[in-house]
Amino acid sequence: MSFNSFGHLFRVTTWGESHGPALGATVDGCPPNIPLDETMLQVWLDKRKPGQNKFTTQRQEADQVEILSGVFEGKTTGTPIQLMIRNTDQRSKDYGDILDKFRPGHADITYWQKYGIRDHRGGGRSSARETAARVAAGGVARAVLNVLMPDLRILGYMVQMGDKHIDRDLVDLAEITNNPFWAPDAKAADVWAKYLNDLRKSGNSVGAVVEVIASGVPAGLGAPVYAKLDTDISSAMMSINAVKGVEIGAGMGAAELTGEDNADEIFMGPDGPVYSSNHAGGILGGISTGQDVVCRFAVKPTSSILKPRKTITKSGEETEIITKGRHDPCVGIRAVPVGEAMMACVLLDHILLHRGQVGENQGQIG
Amino acid sequence: MSFNSFGHLFRVTTWGESHGPALGATVDGCPPNIPLDETMLQVWLDKRKPGQNKFTTQRQEADQVEILSGVFEGKTTGTPIQLMIRNTDQRSKDYGDILDKFRPGHADITYWQKYGIRDHRGGGRSSARETAARVAAGGVARAVLNVLMPDLRILGYMVQMGDKHIDRDLVDLAEITNNPFWAPDAKAADVWAKYLNDLRKSGNSVGAVVEVIASGVPAGLGAPVYAKLDTDISSAMMSINAVKGVEIGAGMGAAELTGEDNADEIFMGPDGPVYSSNHAGGILGGISTGQDVVCRFAVKPTSSILKPRKTITKSGEETEIITKGRHDPCVGIRAVPVGEAMMACVLLDHILLHRGQVGENQGQIG
Amino acid sequence: MSFNSFGHLFRVTTWGESHGPALGATVDGCPPNIPLDETMLQVWLDKRKPGQNKFTTQRQEADQVEILSGVFEGKTTGTPIQLMIRNTDQRSKDYGDILDKFRPGHADITYWQKYGIRDHRGGGRSSARETAARVAAGGVARAVLNVLMPDLRILGYMVQMGDKHIDRDLVDLAEITNNPFWAPDAKAADVWAKYLNDLRKSGNSVGAVVEVIASGVPAGLGAPVYAKLDTDISSAMMSINAVKGVEIGAGMGAAELTGEDNADEIFMGPDGPVYSSNHAGGILGGISTGQDVVCRFAVKPTSSILKPRKTITKSGEETEIITKGRHDPCVGIRAVPVGEAMMACVLLDHILLHRGQVGENQGQIG
Amino acid sequence: MSFNSFGHLFRVTTWGESHGPALGATVDGCPPNIPLDETMLQVWLDKRKPGQNKFTTQRQEADQVEILSGVFEGKTTGTPIQLMIRNTDQRSKDYGDILDKFRPGHADITYWQKYGIRDHRGGGRSSARETAARVAAGGVARAVLNVLMPDLRILGYMVQMGDKHIDRDLVDLAEITNNPFWAPDAKAADVWAKYLNDLRKSGNSVGAVVEVIASGVPAGLGAPVYAKLDTDISSAMMSINAVKGVEIGAGMGAAELTGEDNADEIFMGPDGPVYSSNHAGGILGGISTGQDVVCRFAVKPTSSILKPRKTITKSGEETEIITKGRHDPCVGIRAVPVGEAMMACVLLDHILLHRGQVGENQGQIG
Repeated sequence: MSFNSFGHLFRVTTWGESHGPALGATVDGCPPNIPLDETMLQVWLDKRKPGQNKFTTQRQEADQVEILSGVFEGKTTGTPIQLMIRNTDQRSKDYGDILDKFRPGHADITYWQKYGIRDHRGGGRSSARETAARVAAGGVARAVLNVLMPDLRILGYMVQMGDKHIDRDLVDLAEITNNPFWAPDAKAADVWAKYLNDLRKSGNSVGAVVEVIASGVPAGLGAPVYAKLDTDISSAMMSINAVKGVEIGAGMGAAELTGEDNADEIFMGPDGPVYSSNHAGGILGGISTGQDVVCRFAVKPTSSILKPRKTITKSGEETEIITKGRHDPCVGIRAVPVGEAMMACVLLDHILLHRGQVGENQGQIG
Repeated sequence: MSFNSFGHLFRVTTWGESHGPALGATVDGCPPNIPLDETMLQVWLDKRKPGQNKFTTQRQEADQVEILSGVFEGKTTGTPIQLMIRNTDQRSKDYGDILDKFRPGHADITYWQKYGIRDHRGGGRSSARETAARVAAGGVARAVLNVLMPDLRILGYMVQMGDKHIDRDLVDLAEITNNPFWAPDAKAADVWAKYLNDLRKSGNSVGAVVEVIASGVPAGLGAPVYAKLDTDISSAMMSINAVKGVEIGAGMGAAELTGEDNADEIFMGPDGPVYSSNHAGGILGGISTGQDVVCRFAVKPTSSILKPRKTITKSGEETEIITKGRHDPCVGIRAVPVGEAMMACVLLDHILLHRGQVGENQGQIG
Repeated sequence: MSFNSFGHLFRVTTWGESHGPALGATVDGCPPNIPLDETMLQVWLDKRKPGQNKFTTQRQEADQVEILSGVFEGKTTGTPIQLMIRNTDQRSKDYGDILDKFRPGHADITYWQKYGIRDHRGGGRSSARETAARVAAGGVARAVLNVLMPDLRILGYMVQMGDKHIDRDLVDLAEITNNPFWAPDAKAADVWAKYLNDLRKSGNSVGAVVEVIASGVPAGLGAPVYAKLDTDISSAMMSINAVKGVEIGAGMGAAELTGEDNADEIFMGPDGPVYSSNHAGGILGGISTGQDVVCRFAVKPTSSILKPRKTITKSGEETEIITKGRHDPCVGIRAVPVGEAMMACVLLDHILLHRGQVGENQGQIG
Repeated sequence: MSFNSFGHLFRVTTWGESHGPALGATVDGCPPNIPLDETMLQVWLDKRKPGQNKFTTQRQEADQVEILSGVFEGKTTGTPIQLMIRNTDQRSKDYGDILDKFRPGHADITYWQKYGIRDHRGGGRSSARETAARVAAGGVARAVLNVLMPDLRILGYMVQMGDKHIDRDLVDLAEITNNPFWAPDAKAADVWAKYLNDLRKSGNSVGAVVEVIASGVPAGLGAPVYAKLDTDISSAMMSINAVKGVEIGAGMGAAELTGEDNADEIFMGPDGPVYSSNHAGGILGGISTGQDVVCRFAVKPTSSILKPRKTITKSGEETEIITKGRHDPCVGIRAVPVGEAMMACVLLDHILLHRGQVGENQGQIG
């Protein structure tokens, strides 16, 4: 219900601004007795950390997470876990130009219109820095999943930058960590590198599509009608900065399919149902089938660019703006670990919800 | 938090199955003193009603809504409004074949796997009949919007059936009610009519894309970070049966844009900011800009088709299934009024939330 | 979050007015596969039903409950259960006098001040008739508890009417159903009968204290800090019409105890910890101990009395009011099954919450 | 829904343990543009601070609050406010004895039974230190109330210690800050001082009753049926450590009243309705009348006492326990500012809820 919280039983509230002293997440409802320490979270934060190569913002942040509560002698206690990340490299002067001007395509103007006050430094609360807190919370979710559902795997990667798609036939998941784009296709990564370098030098930016899959998800997660698994995944992904579209399985492409083509046929495997295809993205009627859960989301290009754009000032005068500062030419890159984190949180939440309402038993087939 | 509820202050809980005695919605948090009677709701239900032409299911339901509480002498009292719609044409024998077999692409199997019990008659709770309750609730939301925000308009229409798109240059909103597809392009409607008729006769079905726009939306609705206006719209739309993708503004296409192209430039109009374009779909940073709010969603094809598909039975035997009965060859058609209803509920909810947190005043420009 | 809902996982939303066509409850989050039919609910409604003797309102209502959804072939399906009770004996003319005058001690004036509109017939939504819906929902909770926790017992009874207390030394729980007051002390019942008869004849009314105990509650239910078991019980009871105070265990009397007296000493029994006393009312730190959960609440006297009281009209004129109609001289009597129902709902909700967060395992002692 | 959160629109989540590095509160939904800095919160924390005299725990904590987010240039921004208080005087060795033994009357045993793990240091999450976070959050609520409703006043004080009551005829609110007990009756304060000193020296403790009143509350706050103002106040107070009973207005004493006595008669004053008495405690039907909102709650005696009590160990052996360390002989004293803080949060939440659903207008009388 709260504006800055998500989840039902595993509930995450994030707080903090880009240039305030710190930001973080309060994680409530975590199961007890789960091994957890800061190094287990840091590994995920390091994936999202800025300044790792020339394709991400040059802001230098250690993104060191501190656990302030909810963990005792290396294990969760079932009480709220406070995760704090200090901001250390707040170069606020970079933002002087946006004190009075609104960046087109940015939340500057709407925060002002809504609240009549806005922390303009680095976008304040609307900054993508907020996603560091989600990644930390996602790390807690992963630690719990490791215990409750050790076969569950979550993997994110980029499948499109600008109009350049990966070649699905060349996908090799082992490639994902071999390039700065989390691309599962080495050739695409090369193309993207040249493309983005040119854009970056010209002071421009570009959008991207990220895919997140979860395998080893048990059948039966989710619920009709407004807490469907895909409903919760789509709102989780849409809540990430700059996301403008979300797809499950065949996604927008489902519109082009006939019923005959779309119906993933069902066969009986050694451990239960198996399917001929996965247009459903692992979810039918809002409930997981046991197939891979497949989600994609589109990230728009950063609006903080060096290209001059027409805009207005707070006093209503028309003007132009160039946004200097340290910005990501393709925010989609750093959205990959964020998408993974959101998937982890949503899946864990639904595992707990299912256990709460239904218990361990489920309908058997065969 | 509840599985069958949505909304924060204007909160809707739906209930009921396809072939039970009735279904409905409990609407809580409605402002008081709003003129409301059953005829004001019926007009929206009649748009969604089945059996109106050969392109929708031939099930005959009057979808007559009864207001059981929350309205006194023609006005809302601020207490919960119970909306009940009786089911009258439950031809359950049609569903005999799906008692033991799971339809591929349908919730049959996941409801069983989750709960170990399932009302197989007409899909039970997973039936698109549930959306009648949303449309009734949306009618309540529209009645409130009429009073609180009389210039706000919500309009839905189909923009794609199968791989056949409307021509954006030929759009005439007046055409929408002139054809059975809610198409704003008369030529596209003709093409779709032939296409769908052929599919229908062959026992097949097809997907579609629906667009819903809201104009006259004030700037400032929405909230960071997890109650963003687009987050709530996307989960509202994704919760509609058969929806597999949701887009705001440029949507998935935002991935192809550069920052220069994507930034909707801002100018000063007589009544406040105006924009050169609307890639943002009327929402920046989760908060409305005052431009049209633009949402699209893709609906997959009905999985209840006459084409034989491979499947399994509850006892795990492999078999084939043909789904007889009365089904929509393109459920996207009837999803149009449902999308409108969800938009109405989400916008009203955010109007109340904004008024609650911020009050009437907002940041001024100029 | 909703105004007319309570519960976290087992969530109840009630709706309906005293003199509208019907009232009811939507029960969401109920575990599946629980045997349930209308007769199982009717037994509880019959305990609360008006007009059963001269000590309760003479309104004649069958309070027949209909299950409209969520149950299939005699078992819950896990989807929302709609429970509807039709109003049949709405003698609205009885209420003509309160159309313009506000009853002192009644919600008439505050509903008007809040909403600017009010269904004056029988108190509208503020009527104690709303509690019929809770009792029906409580019946669903009991059906689930029977399956999940068959040893759990919930029992309510009156312990005080006016200034007349039961004698704790004479308590015999078997007496509870032998008198119209749910008194566990036959002598007190006799005293109350004479006392209330006199009050009733003089057109007056009186308050009462109801106690509800639950035995067989497992240790570990509840949660820190704001979803404590006692927090949820106290809000559940305080939400019942006319309740002005709630106590757990020693209750307000805890203020008079020293730490030495208050500390329930712990010993080791054959099946785990046992206690020398139960000042805690079965709850420590918001979490159940395994002892009886003990709750008491005070119900104020009905404000609808024949004694003339000074009041004002809607137009602000000073006047007097006598409330004719059919009212309970001691609403505490009919609050007994309502308190039981609320206890059942809260305990089941916390059983599901515990199972969701923690699972089946708990900390062992010994 | 969350275990460690309360409130609907003004939503507070607290976190932290007695002996962890820090504790705090995340305040979400705060209206924007409200003047706020740390000194405005510190004044309330200083009232609750331990170690101020011999009648409270001798633990020395500065309870210095830091605002980590949500405030910009001295004003709230409408985004979440993170309030952090570092723990500085964690003398954990004091607690060595309770590592394996459960204190009777304390949450030690139930946390263990629920979670199978427990931070035994100082009671961990169950410590009354958690209330420091509430007081900080309450300070935010007060800052907002100052702007939105400047005439609203909240005042808490002790009315009973052990069996020693204040004399209502001697009440002088100016006395409250003249004694260490927040007693509004100077004579009672003297009696309590001697009484508590003796108890303290003997290693014992005692309970108390605290009263909190709010004046200047507008009519119309609250809502039927489960978000009643008194429902939310009672759960807020019952969530405070050691509270075992809550009363509104006449409270448990309402049971002794007749309808004639209980009905607060209504007259017409210059600014609207006035009442002959306030048995209702300012709330009718869950909605405020405009009279003083009056709440009382009973606090049980501290269970950490020097008197030996029988108990068991984690391994199930029977033993005795004496709790050394630094404990409050009467926790009711420090519960006074906590009760005030909870009242402030609940009232603000309902002001925002009312504004959200109903807007500024209300039903007029006269």
